[in-house]
Amino acid sequence: MDGGLIPEFYIVLVEPKYSGNLGAVARVMMNFGFKNLLLVKPCPLNEECYVRAVHAYSILDNAKIFDSFEEVSSFLDYLVATSSIETKSDKKHLRNPLSLEEFSNNIFDIEGKVGIVFGREDYGLYNPEIASCDIMLRIPTNDEYPSMNLSHAVAIVLYTLFISSAFKPRKKRNLGRVEKEKLFEFFNLLLEEISYPEHKKEKTRIMVKRIMGRAMPSKWEYHTLMGVIGKAIENIQKNKKSR
Amino acid sequence: MDGGLIPEFYIVLVEPKYSGNLGAVARVMMNFGFKNLLLVKPCPLNEECYVRAVHAYSILDNAKIFDSFEEVSSFLDYLVATSSIETKSDKKHLRNPLSLEEFSNNIFDIEGKVGIVFGREDYGLYNPEIASCDIMLRIPTNDEYPSMNLSHAVAIVLYTLFISSAFKPRKKRNLGRVEKEKLFEFFNLLLEEISYPEHKKEKTRIMVKRIMGRAMPSKWEYHTLMGVIGKAIENIQKNKKSR
Repeated sequence: MDGGLIPEFYIVLVEPKYSGNLGAVARVMMNFGFKNLLLVKPCPLNEECYVRAVHAYSILDNAKIFDSFEEVSSFLDYLVATSSIETKSDKKHLRNPLSLEEFSNNIFDIEGKVGIVFGREDYGLYNPEIASCDIMLRIPTNDEYPSMNLSHAVAIVLYTLFISSAFKPRKKRNLGRVEKEKLFEFFNLLLEEISYPEHKKEKTRIMVKRIMGRAMPSKWEYHTLMGVIGKAIENIQKNKKSR
Repeated sequence: MDGGLIPEFYIVLVEPKYSGNLGAVARVMMNFGFKNLLLVKPCPLNEECYVRAVHAYSILDNAKIFDSFEEVSSFLDYLVATSSIETKSDKKHLRNPLSLEEFSNNIFDIEGKVGIVFGREDYGLYNPEIASCDIMLRIPTNDEYPSMNLSHAVAIVLYTLFISSAFKPRKKRNLGRVEKEKLFEFFNLLLEEISYPEHKKEKTRIMVKRIMGRAMPSKWEYHTLMGVIGKAIENIQKNKKSR
């Protein structure tokens, strides 16, 4: 899962609280050949952390530390939120998860920096963090007790990616952060122009993000979509002025 | 993975040394609905062990303790040795492993008490122990660092069994033929209204179909998208008339 492998995977831990978990994550990353660890406001990388990492100390030594979720997001092209919990609530559209199997079957088709984001041991990821991710990945668990240990969740995701990577086609869809942002910006503008109901906007925006996240479009596809949306906006604006 | 399920699975830990690992194993067993824990000469089931088990204390309370590997073997019908290390030595025939995928695809065809045996944190299982097992199961890892944490190995095996056992149809995203056709019809109409270049139309139409095909949107997502496109068309048409 090194060097040549595309996409480039980054394991992102958001505010991990227990040094032992952090070390255990580093170890399992090395077991499956993942090297890049990004930490948002982590607990100390202390002795316990290194003891649990065993031979994976280089991963801890090279871990990059960030001050906020926003900061780490801007470093990555494609963000994958993880959870073992599927809400049955009204936030369904927010989470609307992809299964780990589907994800691992598709993620190797894209290029770029893919961050797989794991939340806090106690609260997981907050809703705004999940909303800013491209997709939500669910690890199936028994309903009776879905709350997994952090390093176990990482182990299962990385194992699944590791075995999926073994037989992957190399047809790439280039995913660009810039294109993506531009597309969402255009889409927002379109919603403005058509006077889309205010209370529905956020939900619809996230929905489009999730659809695009699942579809993993190529640069060409993004540009074409931007062309269509751009032209629609242009037509609406032009006509408005001419009235 | 409870009650009705055939075969009956038992997680067997041989001489686990660290109470924390033991607790972590109990937790992940509960995450995937496995209840039966058998221990051969374990470390103490102390406070650390219970802390790490979190809500899975009942698995520790009900764990059965054995004095030897022979004793626990005689309690089970089918023994599965596990390892992440594949030897290239002359002991190959001894280990001659089955991959986790093959195993999980086939194990549900058998009946009886199946013990999945995990070895010591440092030495794994001894050769006579492996020899007395029915099969050897290998967890694929990166060659550079194959030695996994005990509870991670258990997590990966149980997760794989859990998803194999499920045959649970994944939470379906209902793809409606009518919605789909309506959406493409709306999209065509939008292309007309924005005077999209004739020679690009077909390519763009197919592209949208492919994106939607990959994203597999739900009915709700189709309706929302139709709403947005419909409103864009409406705005363009209305403005045209008002000129």
